[in-house]
Amino acid sequence: MAGKAEGLSSAASGDASLIVIPREELHAFVVRSLEKVGAKTSHARDLADLLVAADYRGHFSHGLNRLEFYMMDLVTKFVAVDAEPEIVKQTVATALVNGNNLYGPVVGKFSMDLAIKKAREAGIGWVTCKGSNHFGIAGYYSIRAMEQGLLGMAFTNTSPKLVPTRARTQTLGTGPISVSAPANNGDSMVLDMATTVVALGKVEVKNTLQEQIPLGWGVDTEGKPTTDPKIVLGDGGLMPLGGAEETSGYKGYGLGLMVEVFCGILSGATFGPFIRNWALHDGVADLVSYMRKGKN
Amino acid sequence: MAGKAEGLSSAASGDASLIVIPREELHAFVVRSLEKVGAKTSHARDLADLLVAADYRGHFSHGLNRLEFYMMDLVTKFVAVDAEPEIVKQTVATALVNGNNLYGPVVGKFSMDLAIKKAREAGIGWVTCKGSNHFGIAGYYSIRAMEQGLLGMAFTNTSPKLVPTRARTQTLGTGPISVSAPANNGDSMVLDMATTVVALGKVEVKNTLQEQIPLGWGVDTEGKPTTDPKIVLGDGGLMPLGGAEETSGYKGYGLGLMVEVFCGILSGATFGPFIRNWALHDGVADLVSYMRKGKN
Repeated sequence: MAGKAEGLSSAASGDASLIVIPREELHAFVVRSLEKVGAKTSHARDLADLLVAADYRGHFSHGLNRLEFYMMDLVTKFVAVDAEPEIVKQTVATALVNGNNLYGPVVGKFSMDLAIKKAREAGIGWVTCKGSNHFGIAGYYSIRAMEQGLLGMAFTNTSPKLVPTRARTQTLGTGPISVSAPANNGDSMVLDMATTVVALGKVEVKNTLQEQIPLGWGVDTEGKPTTDPKIVLGDGGLMPLGGAEETSGYKGYGLGLMVEVFCGILSGATFGPFIRNWALHDGVADLVSYMRKGKN
Repeated sequence: MAGKAEGLSSAASGDASLIVIPREELHAFVVRSLEKVGAKTSHARDLADLLVAADYRGHFSHGLNRLEFYMMDLVTKFVAVDAEPEIVKQTVATALVNGNNLYGPVVGKFSMDLAIKKAREAGIGWVTCKGSNHFGIAGYYSIRAMEQGLLGMAFTNTSPKLVPTRARTQTLGTGPISVSAPANNGDSMVLDMATTVVALGKVEVKNTLQEQIPLGWGVDTEGKPTTDPKIVLGDGGLMPLGGAEETSGYKGYGLGLMVEVFCGILSGATFGPFIRNWALHDGVADLVSYMRKGKN
């Protein structure tokens, strides 16, 4: 969380390296950064809302840490600027949205708000979309519905990094599932999880610390379990939730496939092994689908 | 698969202990058995459809193996006979069904057929129900939607047997998730999985064979991993999908909680640790909720 000169204050802990940045300053910094590379102000705000919310919830891997990736999306022109998401077709309770290759959070917010509107009218709204991009933490969208007293759900497909049970090839992504439900006295249930054993960021952290990863997180190019984070980050891959076959890793694989059916297949977008690697900036993503539902 | 004298034929394998029973004979036997203990013919048929389908799919633990349990439900009068499921309230796309304490498969079929009807009208149908009972394999219901060209989903809460991460008490059930989707050339994707590492039946099998279970399936009364099936079947319990905390068992716990929110919480039925143990026949269940959705 660096790069900002005004609005800083020393942390109360006395740790000179720890600084606290007011939330609104962080938000304004992100908006200005994105505008610099050509983003519309409204789109920059949608993305800033998401990144700041991710940091605020403690998902530092998905917050400002990713700002450069999103900026590169515009610099390389792999993400569109001068467009808005549009409804391709709809029923009273469902819709297919074309994200027109805009930023994921722009398409995500549009689609979730459409789903919320439908849920108010029909009891449930399910919106799936194509032509989107990396949409950040899935929990951001399910929480958006929850904040309106609804039960929210969000899913997205992602770049391939999962090696299915009995396989040796990266076939699906980390396929997150998020479900948020309001509870009594301001409490809530927020589930926001990858369908792989761990998110890739956890392996990256172990690699940086030069530590081994626990057995059950990843496999090598032969599909065999490995404790070497470098191999998992390279041509190996992540194991599905459940780990090895003996401990039902195929269930995590099935959940990942479910997410892919909800997202890439249902929307007619790109799916599974055909999705490009975001970090490489070597193509258009064409991602994302999600839904939410209301109470009976 | 015993108890039937007519319609048997020797298996081609030459194994004298292996017999093949025509599907329709098996079905008729189940219907007659249930009628004997007082079931309405239509309800007996719904239950027979489910049990035979479970055996036919190879889920022998959930097929005729369970007939005695279902019969006991009527003998002990914990399940109602002279009623039908009813719609408590509904929107164009959602409904709350009261199962009136009928057999789970009677309530399940009614609710899934209602969801299918709503999906045809609104693009998606989500039905949740209370006052139900053990509904068998979840896949039976999602497949019912899939057979009509729809994307089907089914969930149910169950008797507590899961010990959450960092806990030592059985708090949730095996909370199955099922999603079925039609594919090209008659192919399909059918996911039908417990959100615990394994179903209880797998531990029972190991116990019968006097074998140890793999580390990662279950815990003892202190919440510590154990390889003794007797302890897991007793006051220990199953681990959530993902196993130990290090391999993200809390994700399986979160998925189990999601299922409980969809079922017990959303419908206003009994939930979590308050659900009675089916095998003991010591109370009314008040279970089950599920949904399905159509294509956009």
